[in-house]
Amino acid sequence: MTDDSRPSARGAAVDVPGLVEQARAGRARAVGRLISLVEDESPLLREVMAGLAPYAGRAHVVGITGAPGVGKSTSTSALVTALRATGKRVGVLAVDPSSPFSGGALLGDRVRMSDHATDPGVFIRSMASRGHLGGLAWSTPQALRVLDAAGFDVVVVETVGVGQSEVEVARTADTTVVLLAPGMGDGIQAAKAGILEIGDVYVVNKADRDGAATVRRDLRNMLSLTERPADSWRPPVLLMSAQLGEGVPEVVAKLDEHHEWAASTGSLQRRRVRRAKDEVEAIAVTALRRRWTGVSDRTELDDLAEQVVAGELDPYAAADRLLGQDV
Amino acid sequence: MTDDSRPSARGAAVDVPGLVEQARAGRARAVGRLISLVEDESPLLREVMAGLAPYAGRAHVVGITGAPGVGKSTSTSALVTALRATGKRVGVLAVDPSSPFSGGALLGDRVRMSDHATDPGVFIRSMASRGHLGGLAWSTPQALRVLDAAGFDVVVVETVGVGQSEVEVARTADTTVVLLAPGMGDGIQAAKAGILEIGDVYVVNKADRDGAATVRRDLRNMLSLTERPADSWRPPVLLMSAQLGEGVPEVVAKLDEHHEWAASTGSLQRRRVRRAKDEVEAIAVTALRRRWTGVSDRTELDDLAEQVVAGELDPYAAADRLLGQDV
Repeated sequence: MTDDSRPSARGAAVDVPGLVEQARAGRARAVGRLISLVEDESPLLREVMAGLAPYAGRAHVVGITGAPGVGKSTSTSALVTALRATGKRVGVLAVDPSSPFSGGALLGDRVRMSDHATDPGVFIRSMASRGHLGGLAWSTPQALRVLDAAGFDVVVVETVGVGQSEVEVARTADTTVVLLAPGMGDGIQAAKAGILEIGDVYVVNKADRDGAATVRRDLRNMLSLTERPADSWRPPVLLMSAQLGEGVPEVVAKLDEHHEWAASTGSLQRRRVRRAKDEVEAIAVTALRRRWTGVSDRTELDDLAEQVVAGELDPYAAADRLLGQDV
Repeated sequence: MTDDSRPSARGAAVDVPGLVEQARAGRARAVGRLISLVEDESPLLREVMAGLAPYAGRAHVVGITGAPGVGKSTSTSALVTALRATGKRVGVLAVDPSSPFSGGALLGDRVRMSDHATDPGVFIRSMASRGHLGGLAWSTPQALRVLDAAGFDVVVVETVGVGQSEVEVARTADTTVVLLAPGMGDGIQAAKAGILEIGDVYVVNKADRDGAATVRRDLRNMLSLTERPADSWRPPVLLMSAQLGEGVPEVVAKLDEHHEWAASTGSLQRRRVRRAKDEVEAIAVTALRRRWTGVSDRTELDDLAEQVVAGELDPYAAADRLLGQDV
């Protein structure tokens, strides 16, 4: 099912307990409206999150990331189909850190998963906005919590592989899938720069094209050189063609395998605690920022900033005073 | 001159007042070491910033941003040459929000401004790292403060036009230059998504190529439709070929004109106060984060996060408790 709830979520009075109940009963519109409250940074969020808390923590959160051009949207769509074939309900958050230059367009194909438009077991939401507060770190975990509490078995978070977003999605997910593809220039060279640390499952998409086996071999070699504790998960490298639907069930099986491994070793719990730490910290920072920048025309921070500009105070001393005010 | 100070800045004891004095006397190595202290998030930063405070606030900070492929590095280099021709000392910070996928390579040509390597009136530093704390928002204003206090007349901050970085550079600069170029696909469509708000001076680079005049005309039309207060600056759209050196002095003249306008209307002071607010806020948030995540193995935040994962507490209630601890 697709989500057409955005306009209606703004404005009128909102019955939060009612929305939570409807979302848990599988009503897509209610799920969409709750996510809109997240995106809009609604003052009601506090109430929403309190209402969801008892029901969260059950979904398997799968992050999917990769450089532009590896076929993320097609892969996500194929994985959703394969997950549905195993009877699971799937929520998808397609996160696009919006650029003033692109508005998403520069970054290529937006999610068009019309295959799933009529399937009530699938909910797809594109989160285009970083909002004003804390960006991805602030809104993604909360949107995810909505889908989780609404009872989706798997929640897929898809991000474009530019900037900090992959690192953030890796911190958000229970299982992180890194997508690669042959013919992406010197893909493996690029891979050196950090993706070796973030993936739980590596997938070489477009496996029907020349060079896929080479990408896999090179990546395996590099992963084998990465030092890991003896009892840690060894990330597999799978071949897939999302377009042709080949290799997709095998990827889904690996996602399950990693999830079971993580649950049995305590790794899952540690990741979730880390994710909750990030989330709580982001909310606390946002609350402080609101206090500092204030609702009044003129705040303590304005005075301090003017003294910094005048060279009377250095920024650290100003920060001390700001915290002295708050601590 | 180029900066080879990075390795030596780490490790050994640092004489901060001595470094500040040398930086102010025009010694490139001292300037580079101070910026390394910023990049390394050194505990000495507090002392550095206190030492620099009385001397900061004099440089004209020029932000240069644009999508990949518009010729940012070449343009920056050409502008540096033109600024030098007017007798000004110029510092350049080339900021590259490092991607795990790219390590910078994906984003194209890194700054190679060998033209200026032997000129003691030019200091160029590539800031590749976002660091662990607050990214650009944290390190760029402080690196900028180093160059400012060291006596550079103009400090250019060049950023890649991906993600949030243009918005951040626009908040950091006294004058923001947005670069465009013909033949960048549907450049003006892409431009709709936000650059109309951030530029003080628009430059269509590669003006020797087909389509430059069209890009300028379309951009002018769109800018004329943007609502602005009657007494506000009207951003000009200039043609330039950085490669051929054509139109560059005209851009420099516009930078000066904007700077004078901003100084005379109070706009400059307002921007600088806003910049100082961002900076003070980022430092304060960083200090709080350090306190929350702590040096000990187990912090209050760990306990709260575990309760969130267990569904006993929602993240807002957890943030309240965290702040109750600190406030």
